[in-house]
Amino acid sequence: LEHIKNIAAAFSELQLEICQKLEQADGKGLFGKDNWNKEIGGGVTRVIQNGQVIEKGAVNFSFVEGKLSERMESVLGEKADNYAATGISSILHAHNPWVPTIHMNVRYFVLDNGVSWFGGGIDLTPSIIVPGEAKWFHEQLKAICDRFHPDFYSRFKKWADDYYFLPHRDETRGVGGIFFDRLKPDENVDFGQLFAFAEAQAKAYPDIYSEFMKNSNKAFTEREKHWQSLRRGRYVEFNLVNDRGTKFGLESKGNTESILVSMPANAAWEYNFSPPPGSLEEKTQELLKKDINWIGFKNKK
Amino acid sequence: LEHIKNIAAAFSELQLEICQKLEQADGKGLFGKDNWNKEIGGGVTRVIQNGQVIEKGAVNFSFVEGKLSERMESVLGEKADNYAATGISSILHAHNPWVPTIHMNVRYFVLDNGVSWFGGGIDLTPSIIVPGEAKWFHEQLKAICDRFHPDFYSRFKKWADDYYFLPHRDETRGVGGIFFDRLKPDENVDFGQLFAFAEAQAKAYPDIYSEFMKNSNKAFTEREKHWQSLRRGRYVEFNLVNDRGTKFGLESKGNTESILVSMPANAAWEYNFSPPPGSLEEKTQELLKKDINWIGFKNKK
Repeated sequence: LEHIKNIAAAFSELQLEICQKLEQADGKGLFGKDNWNKEIGGGVTRVIQNGQVIEKGAVNFSFVEGKLSERMESVLGEKADNYAATGISSILHAHNPWVPTIHMNVRYFVLDNGVSWFGGGIDLTPSIIVPGEAKWFHEQLKAICDRFHPDFYSRFKKWADDYYFLPHRDETRGVGGIFFDRLKPDENVDFGQLFAFAEAQAKAYPDIYSEFMKNSNKAFTEREKHWQSLRRGRYVEFNLVNDRGTKFGLESKGNTESILVSMPANAAWEYNFSPPPGSLEEKTQELLKKDINWIGFKNKK
Repeated sequence: LEHIKNIAAAFSELQLEICQKLEQADGKGLFGKDNWNKEIGGGVTRVIQNGQVIEKGAVNFSFVEGKLSERMESVLGEKADNYAATGISSILHAHNPWVPTIHMNVRYFVLDNGVSWFGGGIDLTPSIIVPGEAKWFHEQLKAICDRFHPDFYSRFKKWADDYYFLPHRDETRGVGGIFFDRLKPDENVDFGQLFAFAEAQAKAYPDIYSEFMKNSNKAFTEREKHWQSLRRGRYVEFNLVNDRGTKFGLESKGNTESILVSMPANAAWEYNFSPPPGSLEEKTQELLKKDINWIGFKNKK
């Protein structure tokens, strides 16, 4: 399990780089730094609150190791004594409803039976979907994926659509992105390339978000701000009801404040809310669907 | 399964009575009425939004029946072909942080193997705990319980402490109350008395809450209002992460809007929030513990 330390060191550096780039783009907010240590390992939680553009966000790094429990063995379908895992996980919520919420995660998992894999992804959750922006976002992700494997984008785009989905609402969390797990080296892509793929995502993440942060100059109405709060309610529902990572973290007695730092600063619920017919909010609702080809998206005239 | 229709009819009448009493106490808000029907049965969702005192609340009635799935058999430890269930479920959130959130549920479950039981309870979640009020609340519940069985209050008070608990926060949801499930007739309490016990709770519920609604005359600060939002965040966490009823409802493809009408109008999250030392908020946090003897509570001088 020794080589994971190099990956953890690289992730830790990337965490800092992401925070620095985001601070620069924000122009006011600064990331705090909290180290935590538990029996299973430790991490560094970096949180920004009340920035110029970013209302609440976090970039977390963690490195944990321990005995592989029977439950984990059955979930993973692997037999081993010990595991180690390291990763970066980030969520950013902005004040302005025209600046989407974004989420990024890269992680590496290794067992002492020799099996190891990468997981991760980036996905976007706009309050109000602007198809041209969703298209641009997917183009950026496809460009990263294409550098490593011609199938990556289409496979991981579909995976994100399926993962970021609320069955009880029958809607996607946002416009998706890419999601992958249990990605192991094979004849096409070796370990070094997978590591580089994870790094490329983490590096692109603050650059992509900086583009969206420029929307904070856009004026917005009270109604759009309320709609943002309602959409944040759905984000909370996804994270607490559907997200496997959050569930696993809370059940395994992880660091609750670090896990739930993903929650938005505020959220709202209104019974049987329906947006005005023909409004952008209504159009957004219609676009919260799986399998939309964002890169090929054409606006109907 | 025929006799459950009488209970459902009684619950349906009680639903209306509760709403009428609450409307009178509120003086402005009115409950809407939505009937819903699904394959498994139907119900009536009555929701109040933006009342004078009550910000968001619901009193729901439902009557469902169907085949007992293998999963339900294993959860219940019972073998039967069909089940039927009816109940009232209510949550009320008020504008003023000095008016607590309250929750009440009564339900009856019957199997075609002859086994049936009652479940239910009332519990209180103040933003700011006022020990004298928590004491009064528990006294009201004890008085109801004592009419039916001398052990009911102590058993069901403990059950509520254990049920309304957030393990990931190591805190109770509020000051508890009573909670019971699988309550079957025995040599001490017959079916009629259990039904009367459930009815007594449902009848007392709006009267108890009307007393708390009087707190809406109390002035409050911005800080207390923000604290209320943070406490509502915990309420959301409990309902989405820990509450078995909500989980079961969402998984069994129930009526999502009726299930999640329990969500507050708003909620907030702040990373690593800690209230000012010596503040009422801090004292509240210290009282979010199991096994506090509220009836015997003495304020320290």
